[in-house]
Amino acid sequence: MSSHSFVSGSSAGVYSPRQGQAYALVSAKTGQRSPSNRGLSRINKAGQLQSSATRQPCRERRHSLQICNVAAAERPTLNLNGASGSQARVMIIGGDGYCGWATALHLSARGYPVCIVDNLVRRNYDAQLGLDTLTPIVSLHQRARRWGEVSGQHLDLQIGDICDFEFLSEAVQAFKPDTIVHFGEQRSAPYSMIDRARAVYTQHNNVIGTLNVLFAIKEFAPDCHLVKLGTMGEYGTPNIDIEEGFITINHNGRSDRLPYPKQGGSFYHLSKIHDSHNLHFATKAWKLAATDLNQGVVYGVDTAETTAHPQLINRYDYDGIFGTALNRFVVQAAVDHPLTVYGKGGQTRGYLDIRDTVRCVQLAIDNPAQRGEFRVYNQFTEQFSVNDLASIIKRQGAKLGLNVQVASVPNPRVEAEDHYYNAKHTHLVELGLEPHLLEDNLIDSLLNFALQYKDRIDVNLIKPAVDWRKAGSRNAMMSAAIAK
Amino acid sequence: MSSHSFVSGSSAGVYSPRQGQAYALVSAKTGQRSPSNRGLSRINKAGQLQSSATRQPCRERRHSLQICNVAAAERPTLNLNGASGSQARVMIIGGDGYCGWATALHLSARGYPVCIVDNLVRRNYDAQLGLDTLTPIVSLHQRARRWGEVSGQHLDLQIGDICDFEFLSEAVQAFKPDTIVHFGEQRSAPYSMIDRARAVYTQHNNVIGTLNVLFAIKEFAPDCHLVKLGTMGEYGTPNIDIEEGFITINHNGRSDRLPYPKQGGSFYHLSKIHDSHNLHFATKAWKLAATDLNQGVVYGVDTAETTAHPQLINRYDYDGIFGTALNRFVVQAAVDHPLTVYGKGGQTRGYLDIRDTVRCVQLAIDNPAQRGEFRVYNQFTEQFSVNDLASIIKRQGAKLGLNVQVASVPNPRVEAEDHYYNAKHTHLVELGLEPHLLEDNLIDSLLNFALQYKDRIDVNLIKPAVDWRKAGSRNAMMSAAIAK
Repeated sequence: MSSHSFVSGSSAGVYSPRQGQAYALVSAKTGQRSPSNRGLSRINKAGQLQSSATRQPCRERRHSLQICNVAAAERPTLNLNGASGSQARVMIIGGDGYCGWATALHLSARGYPVCIVDNLVRRNYDAQLGLDTLTPIVSLHQRARRWGEVSGQHLDLQIGDICDFEFLSEAVQAFKPDTIVHFGEQRSAPYSMIDRARAVYTQHNNVIGTLNVLFAIKEFAPDCHLVKLGTMGEYGTPNIDIEEGFITINHNGRSDRLPYPKQGGSFYHLSKIHDSHNLHFATKAWKLAATDLNQGVVYGVDTAETTAHPQLINRYDYDGIFGTALNRFVVQAAVDHPLTVYGKGGQTRGYLDIRDTVRCVQLAIDNPAQRGEFRVYNQFTEQFSVNDLASIIKRQGAKLGLNVQVASVPNPRVEAEDHYYNAKHTHLVELGLEPHLLEDNLIDSLLNFALQYKDRIDVNLIKPAVDWRKAGSRNAMMSAAIAK
Repeated sequence: MSSHSFVSGSSAGVYSPRQGQAYALVSAKTGQRSPSNRGLSRINKAGQLQSSATRQPCRERRHSLQICNVAAAERPTLNLNGASGSQARVMIIGGDGYCGWATALHLSARGYPVCIVDNLVRRNYDAQLGLDTLTPIVSLHQRARRWGEVSGQHLDLQIGDICDFEFLSEAVQAFKPDTIVHFGEQRSAPYSMIDRARAVYTQHNNVIGTLNVLFAIKEFAPDCHLVKLGTMGEYGTPNIDIEEGFITINHNGRSDRLPYPKQGGSFYHLSKIHDSHNLHFATKAWKLAATDLNQGVVYGVDTAETTAHPQLINRYDYDGIFGTALNRFVVQAAVDHPLTVYGKGGQTRGYLDIRDTVRCVQLAIDNPAQRGEFRVYNQFTEQFSVNDLASIIKRQGAKLGLNVQVASVPNPRVEAEDHYYNAKHTHLVELGLEPHLLEDNLIDSLLNFALQYKDRIDVNLIKPAVDWRKAGSRNAMMSAAIAK
């Protein structure tokens, strides 16, 4: 037997921990629930968590952002094979991570039976490198239990490594997913550039893990729709418009629609490029259904569900290795540290609020690819240069009395610092995405948040810790932790 | 310490085993030899192996093809850093394989100090699957010793796995290559499609091995030119002309020269796509010098050097897993087996004679990429459809009294069987390649050869043994061996 365990969150039939309301259990085994439970996890516009029967206010709230109403219009109505969204069984690989946890709760709140598959290695990266999330997260098991108590929805947990095919195949056969959402990869570019061992780890873990997912779907769940997280970084910074996955090329009097050329900027980005090619082949050779979500840089932390209880809070990474640009800048602003712009600051990328990440994934699930189809959606809402971000934070920070300074530091990456960038992102909007825009939400969803956790910030962690040019074959175990 | 050994071929200072001629040793340590040794391994037009002093005939020859004169014009004059070709130290990873062995001898005969790095796994694949080369090859150690005796040239052997970085780094530091030629990958598309374990093995072995080579060069030999074997199969079969690695795309009024879009047709082909992306990044991030040789389907077996002694003979694979299309057809013709055309037979690919493979690699070595440069050469000389090949063999076979039949069998692969194909291949011709053409050489270099070894042919091995659609997660250890 492989070394994994099956852990349930809340599995009581009727449970309402703090409000005494009656919540019916959604069975994770069948995905069925009675019509009378349809409104169970609805939360009204005033931010009150409500049962369908009593509509009493939620007593546990911490943030100004509160769980908002899950409108009927948002509720899924279709999925692969014509099953209704509330019956679609979603396996979320990497459900303990930043995007994965938010997505798991978002879907669970909307009636999707959810199984989180995770080997908890994201927590181990922090342990290796002496890093920590800004927010105090509890164990995955405690998170899942708490979610069961708060929402009445059951989360299946399967703890193991998808590079272990025996584990993965058992998990897939046990849960019988209609959709697998695959967040379960090492997702930091700097981490992949620390040293040879971590470059190799990143490509092995990501590429082999995804190969295993493809084989598991082919073998045990051929109708299952794979929603795979890619990255906008796969495209690099070409001097032409970036299309969504494919581009029609006219050449020497002929024309073809071909995969968009890829130019990865780190061994991490390259691993996602490798995945994309493998996925494309599997959809052709085996008629699998796959959607590749080329996601931009995600910012923010709260979603409607993660604010429902302190123990549901998401992780928030601001360090030089796992902290994405905007999240890192916000923390710097909160502690009066100059925003560290790498080089000229003209590096332009697509960005999105984590509240849009979870909606994009839901849209992909509700509008699945067909068998044999390989779809690529560019998953971001706005594009900014690093200098744009610094200006916005400076402007919005001033409203809170923050005197935000900006400093250019030598760019530890090898990348263009002044380039053309125009990436298409219409597919998800066409499916109904209504974006949260950065300037509207920066203070409430980010700056105030960082100020709230100011005393947990370790400024040693926010400096750039990994130089692309210096990635060596020698083990650099501690160098990332000890910011230089 | 890692589990590898260092083995030398001939290391006697002066040695001439059968002819009593004086051969001066080329020191593998310094790469230096005295000017008087310049003509040592020259072989004249009549096929006679000659020392520069005595010009006596070689007494050991078996085939009608004989070692031909290595014209002075072919001798290398330049390599990276301005060293002369006779000083360029070449490490050949995978030097025990089909292309690797021929290349090692070709270069060694021309005065390049050569170190073969190989883990001998190609021989193990045959053992796993119950396959065998048509030709009786001896151990690598015996091959290397025999080459030393025949040519007076020393071959360094380093036996180990490049996925073991400790081994690879020691090998690179010991040999100090000016060029690394990297053939050391699992190179069969059907092998990669046998089952999940072999798909994962292929991508792990090829991608991680190449990552290790990149790190070893960066760390221990930053001026070393990497000549990496890719495959024409990386391009797939687009409906536009295939360029050499890059294509200028005009799109929405802008233009950029970008990596040519890739569409791999097996997990093997995909592994080479992954390598290409990793190489491209490494040349940008670390200023490495790399040439990616996107090779077509290689046919033939003899080169000038491998015919110098029976124990120098190259391997010849005709089975359904490692046999390339043309080599397999020739064996079928020799035993009155119908040529097994997969599906419609319109599948068109680039082909080249193994005698051109070795010259292409030498051209890449002698005209190295610059640091920071990532060059891609399409390495083939002619393109044919499968039906074209069958017609040529039928026509040429008739001259030898063979009544060649052609049979269409269900295509075990997932591929277009009737498609546009026009691939550019001018870079190597511009560097001086003079191709051997198939129709001119088929009888002498292939059909007569197969007839000579007719009694070693096992017809059970030539049927298609791997179905792309059936690649499963269960271990298919023996199914490939037992042709169905």
